[in-house]
Amino acid sequence: MAAGQRDISVSEFFAKNRHLLGFDNPRKALLTTVKEAMDNGLDACEEAGILPEIWVHIERVGQDRYKVGVQDNGPGILRKQIPLIFGKLLYGSKFHRLRMSRGQQGIGISAAGMHGVLTTGKPVKIISKVSRRKPAHYYEIQINTKLNVPEILNGRGAGIEIPPNHLGQKAIEKHGIEWIEQDHGTRVTIELEAKYQRGRGSVDEYLEQTAIANPHVTIHYTDPDGNEIEYNRVMDQLPPEPKEIKPHPYGVELGRLVSMLQQTEQPTLSKFFIHSFSRVSSSVARRICTAAKVGTRSNPHRIKRQEADLLHQAIQAAKIPAPASDCVVPIGEESILKGLRQVVPGEFYAAATRPPAVYRGNPFQIE
Amino acid sequence: MAAGQRDISVSEFFAKNRHLLGFDNPRKALLTTVKEAMDNGLDACEEAGILPEIWVHIERVGQDRYKVGVQDNGPGILRKQIPLIFGKLLYGSKFHRLRMSRGQQGIGISAAGMHGVLTTGKPVKIISKVSRRKPAHYYEIQINTKLNVPEILNGRGAGIEIPPNHLGQKAIEKHGIEWIEQDHGTRVTIELEAKYQRGRGSVDEYLEQTAIANPHVTIHYTDPDGNEIEYNRVMDQLPPEPKEIKPHPYGVELGRLVSMLQQTEQPTLSKFFIHSFSRVSSSVARRICTAAKVGTRSNPHRIKRQEADLLHQAIQAAKIPAPASDCVVPIGEESILKGLRQVVPGEFYAAATRPPAVYRGNPFQIE
Repeated sequence: MAAGQRDISVSEFFAKNRHLLGFDNPRKALLTTVKEAMDNGLDACEEAGILPEIWVHIERVGQDRYKVGVQDNGPGILRKQIPLIFGKLLYGSKFHRLRMSRGQQGIGISAAGMHGVLTTGKPVKIISKVSRRKPAHYYEIQINTKLNVPEILNGRGAGIEIPPNHLGQKAIEKHGIEWIEQDHGTRVTIELEAKYQRGRGSVDEYLEQTAIANPHVTIHYTDPDGNEIEYNRVMDQLPPEPKEIKPHPYGVELGRLVSMLQQTEQPTLSKFFIHSFSRVSSSVARRICTAAKVGTRSNPHRIKRQEADLLHQAIQAAKIPAPASDCVVPIGEESILKGLRQVVPGEFYAAATRPPAVYRGNPFQIE
Repeated sequence: MAAGQRDISVSEFFAKNRHLLGFDNPRKALLTTVKEAMDNGLDACEEAGILPEIWVHIERVGQDRYKVGVQDNGPGILRKQIPLIFGKLLYGSKFHRLRMSRGQQGIGISAAGMHGVLTTGKPVKIISKVSRRKPAHYYEIQINTKLNVPEILNGRGAGIEIPPNHLGQKAIEKHGIEWIEQDHGTRVTIELEAKYQRGRGSVDEYLEQTAIANPHVTIHYTDPDGNEIEYNRVMDQLPPEPKEIKPHPYGVELGRLVSMLQQTEQPTLSKFFIHSFSRVSSSVARRICTAAKVGTRSNPHRIKRQEADLLHQAIQAAKIPAPASDCVVPIGEESILKGLRQVVPGEFYAAATRPPAVYRGNPFQIE
């Protein structure tokens, strides 16, 4: 059992196991692709404080082949980041932070692009623009599945610069780039083997639900039959920005507690608890340490496995206030109602927002 | 959208997304852990031509905590490979080859170990022995989730050598190593947060089914209540060894065809088809090329996207013999019946083996 043992690249693994990422079948592949692109667009806009406007265009280009174009009016992406964000799995900015967002994993949109390349051989096309006065950048890329790195196919491997004037318009026409003129934003186009269906689990349903849940978003949707569906925003205000918060002690796994203890810069166990977790006061920290029979002034780096285990049990038994709820930003009952009224015809509307709870140290909330 | 973009390690990703690998809940975590260890053990034995004998021991060690030990009588693992196989995700020998086996992905057993470390803080323990005359090696490891590398905790980071004599027996006792004396084999012990249940989807059911489907395997199972269940082999012969075969052209994805064309060492398109796929004769290759209007003597490296697309369509339309079935090794109706009679009491037994079919170029068979 030694011959041929070797590393497997993460993109080879996911090329073979695309079902794990939502590409189980052609219908779901289409939905996942639209959803990943929407998530990225909405997150980008909201982080930049821009009211999102999203264009979604699904075009049938052959038997079981569709072209999905999704454009946002976000802040645009820095040139050198474009190929990595769209052509490398497990690359992103949202994975390590403790803040609510739609996308998290740094895998969705690049996996959608990989699925497109593998099923149609067509590269992923991205144009992104950060300002009216600066050039836009246009890339045609495909993921190198063996190495999990992006390969840039146009502009001799460097992409193309689109100048911010009438010459730019010419370049856009010359290269057949799809782009709705905007001061800033990003458009990604993916061609993939897919199946378009209406009804339950369809792209249409997903976009409708997104419009309901995000009353501050405008969506322009062109479906494969050429129908244009508009969801106009009913609120001119972004939801409050989610805060980045420390984990709540309840439900933090023992393994995570151990690595937090190893990595902390706090000199004492008591300070470690107070500063690494939310809702832990010095008296809560003292009670945890006492219950576990470990000194509050112990050096966190010297806590042994057995002690960590006792601390972990003491945390579960301690009385700690519920997590601060301002890190979870609910849409709110009123806004959901506004969204519902806009999209769904009816006579009676109801919405409910439940109080937040905790899973593995991370607060969540159901609406 | 630029700040903080960075690489995410594959182990960080899977630590957060353990549900993708079968660790959705404590009950399933136990089953997945046993299954991954069994798969590795059975594959190791069969590849070495050894009739498998497997010991499975599940012990309750605390509230919602179990210790899973699985030992095989396989050929043992080379010393330097042990930490990588059990402490690094996406590492293995079975991913790239085109041959039937239980394990494939190089992720299962190391993910089980990672889950154990994260939920209990306890390291994964492995002892492996390649011969009666050579020392065994004992490692206590934990995966470094940030870097996806194994950390060896015992023997000052180098593991421990167990000499092949009475001194060895003393060392085994001294270090509290669990090991049933054998000339060769591997035992892995993982402690994890889990739930033990009987009935549907239980470890008990899985082991029973494994015994039915593998009448050449002996399993000694000690359950958490201390019951000892024995499944003795009813056949003294290994199933025929599966052959490594080339993919069948039907269902090969366009993206895979494109990368095969780029990587082939064959000088002409015709030779590429004949040598890269199974069941393609020179006349089949010619018909594919003719239908796609591409010359049989074209250089595969110079095939353009559009031509690859036409070739891909021509493959689907061509008449190609069904895949050779000797790469899929069915257990066979007779053997399944033997296994059934051994395990399940009853008056009437039936088994069926269907002819093989193809998915994405890979043959499969239902029994």
